[in-house]
Amino acid sequence: MDFERLAKQIEFIVEIDKIKHVFRKTLLINGSRYENDAEHSWHLAIMAILLSEYSNAKDLDVPRVLKMVLVHDIVEIDAGDTFCYDEKGALDKREREEKAADRIFNILPADQAREIRDLWEEFEECRTPEAKFANSLDRLQPLLHNYKTCGRSWKKHGISKERVIERNKPIQKGSRQLWAYVEKMIEDSVDKGYLPEQERFPGK
Amino acid sequence: MDFERLAKQIEFIVEIDKIKHVFRKTLLINGSRYENDAEHSWHLAIMAILLSEYSNAKDLDVPRVLKMVLVHDIVEIDAGDTFCYDEKGALDKREREEKAADRIFNILPADQAREIRDLWEEFEECRTPEAKFANSLDRLQPLLHNYKTCGRSWKKHGISKERVIERNKPIQKGSRQLWAYVEKMIEDSVDKGYLPEQERFPGK
Repeated sequence: MDFERLAKQIEFIVEIDKIKHVFRKTLLINGSRYENDAEHSWHLAIMAILLSEYSNAKDLDVPRVLKMVLVHDIVEIDAGDTFCYDEKGALDKREREEKAADRIFNILPADQAREIRDLWEEFEECRTPEAKFANSLDRLQPLLHNYKTCGRSWKKHGISKERVIERNKPIQKGSRQLWAYVEKMIEDSVDKGYLPEQERFPGK
Repeated sequence: MDFERLAKQIEFIVEIDKIKHVFRKTLLINGSRYENDAEHSWHLAIMAILLSEYSNAKDLDVPRVLKMVLVHDIVEIDAGDTFCYDEKGALDKREREEKAADRIFNILPADQAREIRDLWEEFEECRTPEAKFANSLDRLQPLLHNYKTCGRSWKKHGISKERVIERNKPIQKGSRQLWAYVEKMIEDSVDKGYLPEQERFPGK
């Protein structure tokens, strides 16, 4: 058999183990430590299985959503996690991630490098129903973690209700129903004191 | 909309965050710490996407394999990880895991509790082509980690070549091609001194 092809696939599988060391700004729900990208991606995949009924699209290709959320953060092995409220980091995010995609995906045989890159680009462009839904999940999951940890990460970074709404309203592009749920969760977070109405550090 | 159904789904999604604290006996490839079940399940899902071409079954339902590997370890939130070479732990594994499945899956609405339980039972029974392939990946992944960490976990637990073969030969039920690759990897591990030919602690 063609061990040359399999050797490339195995090399990629070994390489992406590094994603388990890429830490996000989201705490685990018990608050003990930050979450890494492998854990986050696994969580999104389970959410895709369970919540696809809430997609705005009636004929959502769920397996495609699954694949997309599983690979969407692999570029962060080289590019690092860019905090979603980090405006400076956002400036060169695309460039850093393109370079990472070039290196990491091309470890694979050409056909699979193309397949994974297409999935990642589809996710990033957020135009197809599948990408919109995958992006909704990618926002909903850290929101849930923030809610369940009484807003510890929001408080630490001085994030206000307004910014949380701004960041998360694209959820409605994937699912109006999940957005309705999220709106209630945000209101409840303000009521409970997890999330300030106003920015604590204006201009930051 | 029916927030009652969604509330149950969210409760389950929050509950399974605990899988990120269930540690396996497999080291990460850089050897820095043990791997947890969320990371392991994510890794298997990527492997399912990339390696399905090696399945013995020509018409493998890859999305089903994906779902199976994503949920296969959720019961370990309550039942804990049973080391694959732990003969004593294996005795009541099924009982512990059944009890965990009853509690955890039933947090979901009944239809989804059934769906996830069916996936888990299919994986455990290992009779369908999808379950056989998923089980092959579940064996191949820790083997790769052991190989890449120069057999540290094998050495620590005094595992011999014979036991590694015994544990891993079901890989061929899912994929004869992956098994051929694994046989070479095991031979190479012996040659490199990662894995002893003989048991170091006979009878243990």
